[in-house]
Formats: sequence, structure tokens, C-alpha cells
Amino acid sequence: MNRLAYIAIALLALPAAAVVPETSVLGADSPTIQSDRSITFKVTAPTARTVQVAGGDGLGPGPLTMTKGQDGVWTTTTPAAVPGFHYYWFLIDGVRVNDPASRTYFGYSLETSGIEVPEPGADYYAIRNVPHGAVREQWYFSKVTGQWRHAIVYTPPGYDQRPTTRYPVLLLQHGMGEDETGWTRQGKAQFILDNLIAAGKAQPMIVVMDRGYASKDNTVARPTTLQGMRTAFSAFEEVVLHDLIPTIDASYRTLPDREHRAMAGLSMGGMQTLFITLHHPETFSYIASLSGPIVPNMSGERKIDEGFQDPFDSKTAYEGAFADAVGFNKKFKLLWLGVGTEEPQVFHGISRAVRTLQAAGVKVVYFESPGTAHEWQTWRRDLNDLAPRLFR
Amino acid sequence: MNRLAYIAIALLALPAAAVVPETSVLGADSPTIQSDRSITFKVTAPTARTVQVAGGDGLGPGPLTMTKGQDGVWTTTTPAAVPGFHYYWFLIDGVRVNDPASRTYFGYSLETSGIEVPEPGADYYAIRNVPHGAVREQWYFSKVTGQWRHAIVYTPPGYDQRPTTRYPVLLLQHGMGEDETGWTRQGKAQFILDNLIAAGKAQPMIVVMDRGYASKDNTVARPTTLQGMRTAFSAFEEVVLHDLIPTIDASYRTLPDREHRAMAGLSMGGMQTLFITLHHPETFSYIASLSGPIVPNMSGERKIDEGFQDPFDSKTAYEGAFADAVGFNKKFKLLWLGVGTEEPQVFHGISRAVRTLQAAGVKVVYFESPGTAHEWQTWRRDLNDLAPRLFR
Repeated sequence: MNRLAYIAIALLALPAAAVVPETSVLGADSPTIQSDRSITFKVTAPTARTVQVAGGDGLGPGPLTMTKGQDGVWTTTTPAAVPGFHYYWFLIDGVRVNDPASRTYFGYSLETSGIEVPEPGADYYAIRNVPHGAVREQWYFSKVTGQWRHAIVYTPPGYDQRPTTRYPVLLLQHGMGEDETGWTRQGKAQFILDNLIAAGKAQPMIVVMDRGYASKDNTVARPTTLQGMRTAFSAFEEVVLHDLIPTIDASYRTLPDREHRAMAGLSMGGMQTLFITLHHPETFSYIASLSGPIVPNMSGERKIDEGFQDPFDSKTAYEGAFADAVGFNKKFKLLWLGVGTEEPQVFHGISRAVRTLQAAGVKVVYFESPGTAHEWQTWRRDLNDLAPRLFR
Repeated sequence: MNRLAYIAIALLALPAAAVVPETSVLGADSPTIQSDRSITFKVTAPTARTVQVAGGDGLGPGPLTMTKGQDGVWTTTTPAAVPGFHYYWFLIDGVRVNDPASRTYFGYSLETSGIEVPEPGADYYAIRNVPHGAVREQWYFSKVTGQWRHAIVYTPPGYDQRPTTRYPVLLLQHGMGEDETGWTRQGKAQFILDNLIAAGKAQPMIVVMDRGYASKDNTVARPTTLQGMRTAFSAFEEVVLHDLIPTIDASYRTLPDREHRAMAGLSMGGMQTLFITLHHPETFSYIASLSGPIVPNMSGERKIDEGFQDPFDSKTAYEGAFADAVGFNKKFKLLWLGVGTEEPQVFHGISRAVRTLQAAGVKVVYFESPGTAHEWQTWRRDLNDLAPRLFR
């Protein structure tokens, strides 16, 4: 393509000047995203002394100070934002509050404002005129925790029309501070799957998105040590094996065997995925960790992030799960690890583990998302790469 | 039952002292509801000068001033709240903000904190160990508005297991400032239906909850006059008839005729229901308006609430839809009108219309919810009374 044509297409692909994002509430006139992807935020706080806006990595560096107009409305404009979904909030005299103009999304363990910045040319997560699967809520009673739990389940297009067809299952987990709604509301997993399935790139599958927290004593685990995290993950592991999978297999037309069951998760969900699947090769044959911190040795009273620094020895990491590379490759159909290039907290650990595993003969698919941080645009790209590799 | 036994049961039915409601986020320790149904709110705002808490009618009279502790945490305790779901918010130096401890619910045209106050002895909207229907998201493209729209659809227990059974359909609309998620998140319609169906009290039915806003020019209608409201309702009427119903009939196993189609709505949704169903007896045979303001004459440049005061003449109201009582009774299988006793804004208009219609020989089922306001506890009770009367 010649350079002029390229520029013309790039310009066409940019959003029109100053659009209000889809993440704003009906009828809101803010925030606005300019064609250079700078964002103008505003909030009314006539008597406040200081107002700032802050949010996810892709929004820019740290809190931005806002300026008060004569009408009591504070405004500021960010540098060009990274495309994708970003959480954000205002700090009004130091109190963290949401933008009344925005829908809220569950992140940071609370309801948080969000902004969707369009990525020029990326329509793999757009709602398009293709057959759509269904996103369903699934309540189930957990014998492990003694409580009702809530999961989101995607059934693929055609599920209702083919009442004798059975489908493989992907368990897909959110990250720390998020919940079971993250993958469909922030991640748009349903549209990614719809589009891949319509294009013949992915097998029709059922996707189960559960709330990744569980405890047996009705408390909320807030582990600070590796051992505490292991205990919390163990409770969730029991829920997955003894409550969730049986519920899904009883409620949906699944192919209920290990050959047709995958687990994937992002960040904390990636850690849980490795923890659970490596313990249960009889239950899972596909494994994916998306920006999941690598913790080769999840034991002891050490702080959690100290575990991220442990050396990765493919013979001993994860209780020796990778020690026999040939056996591992035979047992599991896929081990998939991904990370964004702008995730300094986890990039080193993941890429090092991939190199070490590959050197030891363990088959790993590695996916790097260029220019994106520990945010949803990384994980949308991940799912778009991962889903076509499942159930082949 | 003797008095002591009654007291013992009443005490057992009360929540334990100081419980955190189900509407709080995982792990939150506030607000707390005491056994006398007083509520203690708290919020951290060390530099604020004034903090108040305000919310729905059932919470108490007007904004309550909060008191600052040495730790920068402001607290207050309300009088005994009415049971049910109430929206609430804080006013920090006059800025309306959500409680970070609460989930948010779409009301007042924005994401708003909510608190669920248990009603002793009321388990008709509780999640129970009965077969559960599915709550699904339905995206569909509207030719009327040129936009994608989002609805919530409840399919009854057994829908997946009986792939040749077809079901009647209830369209169930939210009120002004709310959206399609209100009936399942605030209203718990799915559990009310699950429990009624399990008890054999209601027919298994599909319930469709759409977003009750539509415009043809991609603006958000904020009508102030009756004529403006009529125009807005007309656009939604076209969406319902030309986009929504065909989508539902094509996507679900419905009984696609007027004998098996009902429409109901609360507040604005009740007004829309009367507007749409009375225009389209060929499409609907069951009608219900829940706390819907009665506007006998929806025309002219008068302000909307002036229309609430119009005299109700059964011969001319609603373009003469009720003029022929015998014909009306033959045409429609149910006309159901309901209101809470603590809804002064609409109580008079609704109860007057019921009396006038009944005097004119129009069959009306009238339901009064004792002690509840223009809030969800009224509408949960309404649905619990209404659903068993449908599709008989």
C-alpha cells in the first residue's frame, strides 16, 4: 500500500472528533475522546479544593490535576490514551469517587468508572451482524462454602437450535479485585467468541466465568503470604471441581471429559488456572495463563510478591509438574502463556518461565501483546489468540 | 398460635444484630442493618466539611447529616427503614457520590448505591432450592433506531430440557431513570418467577425486559411535555412491535400470538404498557401497570405532571379504549393496576381510575401494597400477585 493510502485509511479509522464513549451512561456528554485519543474528563464539585482524575495504566502517568471553571465544573485533558478499556476515578479533596457520567465496572474490589477507548481497525471485539451466543447467569449452591454462588455462562450461537449437540467447555477467570462479570462487561468475551465462531476460526464452545473467590468459613480471604494464597486457591479449587463443573455438566449440554475442558484466567485467574489444572490433569487438558504472575513455589510464610522473584527451575517449579517434559506434552494438549509488553510487574517472570520451559522441551505457546498494560486490551487480544487453539 | 410463640417466631425472623446487606461488595463491613431495621452508614472523607446520606423514600425522611469521627470517618444511623431495596448516596460537600462499600444499580439515570433491607418472613423473592430459570442477555439490532439494543430475557426452569415446548411471553418494563437490568438486579424477578413456578402457582413463561428508551434520531429523549412523552413512547412502541417481539419470537420458543403475550411495566413502564397495549389489542391480551401514573389524555404541550391531574372519564380516557366496557372485557384477558399505599404522587390517580373503570363495568384487578413507596418492594409484591394471573 502506498503511504498516502495508508494515511487516508488511518485517518478514516480514527474516531470522529470528541466522541462520548460507549461506557458513559445514556445521554451523558462526558467524558469525551478526541481524535488523537486524548480524553477530556469533567466533574461538577463547586466547593472542592482539589480534584484529580486517576485510573488504569493505559490512561497516562499518575493522577492528573483538574482545573475549576467559574461554573464549579472541573476539567482536564489527558495525553493520548492507549486503546482499550481503562478503569478511572476522581479524587475530590482526596476522596475517591466515581464519575456520575460513567457506567461502573467491578474492579479494585469496588464499583469503578470505566472508559472504552476505540482501537482503530480492531473489530474482533465489536458487536457485529453475526449469530450471537447467549450470556446467561448461573446461580448454584456450593456445598464446599455453604453459599449460593453466581457465575456467567456463554452458550455459543446455535445452542438452542441444536438440542442434541454437546459442546466443549472453557472455564475463564477474572483477576484480583474483579468478579465474574469482568470477562463479558470489560472483556467483551462474548463478542470475541461470536466473531471467531462466525469466521470458522474457533470451535463453538461453552464458556464459564465464575467468581474466583471462595472460603470455607464465610470470610473473605485477603491473603498476604504465599501459604495464605494457597489456602484461598485450594478452597476455590474445591468449588471448581466439586460444585461448578458438576453444575455446568448437569445444566448444559457439555462434553464432560478432560479432552473437552480448558481452563484459562487472567492475572490472579492465571495463577489459579496453573494451580488447579496442574493438580488435575484428569479434569483439564488445555491450560492458559494471561498475565498471570509466575510463582514457582507457592509455599511458606513469605509475602506473595516475594514468590514472583523465585528462580524458575523447570524440574522443581509448580511441585515438579513440568519435570517430565515428554510426559507433560503428552498429557496436556495446550499450555498457553501471554503477557503485554507494558506489564513490567509480570513481564520478566512470564517470559523467563517460557524460555526456561521451552529450553527444557515443554511445549508452550507464548503470546505478547504489544503496547498494552495489565489491562483488558491485553486480555481481549489474548482470548482472540487463545480461543482458536482450543478443542482442535 | 399463642402470643409467646408468635413473638418467638417474629424474633427469629428478624436479622441478627448488625448485618452487612447482600448489596454490599464482597468483604465490606458497611453499611450495617440493625435488628430494629435502623441502618448505620459510614464513609471516609477526612477533609470534607459536610457529609450527608440520602436515598429512596423507604430509607427515611430526607438527607441525614453525618458526624465526623477523629479517624476522618463520617457515620450516622437512620430510623427504622422500610424493608426492601432502597437506592442511596452520600453528599460530600454537596457532591453526590456512591458508597464505595456498595454495589451499584442503575437508577436516577446513573449508577447508584443500593441497600437491601430484609423483610421478615418474606421469602418469595429469595433464591431457594428450587429449579432455576436462566437470565440471559439478548442483543438485537433495531431497524427503527438504527442501533444495537440490549434486553434481559428470563427463560423458565426446564426450558433447555424440553426442546419442543413453547412458552407464553411477558414483556416487563422498568421505570424512568432505570434500565433493562432493574427487574433482575433490584427486582429479583427471576427468583419470584422461579418460586411461583416451583409452587405450581404461575405458568412457566418467558419474561423479556427491554431498555425502555428509544429515539429515531440517536438523541436521548428527555420529554417535558405530554406530547414529547407521546413521541418518545411512540418510538419505543415501534421498537417493541417491529424489532423486539420479532427478535424474541425468532430466538426463543415462544407461543407467538396475542393469547400468549402480556405486557407489564412499573412507573414509566406502566404508562408505556397502557400506551402500547391499548393501541395493539391484536398483539397483547394481558395488561398490567405497576405504580404507573394515570394520564387519561396524553396530548398537548402541557407539562407531564399536569396530565396526571386530568379528570378520568372512562368514555374518553386513553382515546376511548375503555368506552365499550363489554367489548374491552371480551378483548383483554386481564387489566391489572397496582400501587403502594405510600406513593402519594400516584396513589390518587390510580385508585380513582380503578373505581371509575369498575363503576363503568370494566374488569380491573386492583392490588395495593401496604406500607411501601415508589420503590422495588412494591413492584416485587406486584409481580408476585400478577404472574399467577397470566396465561390462565
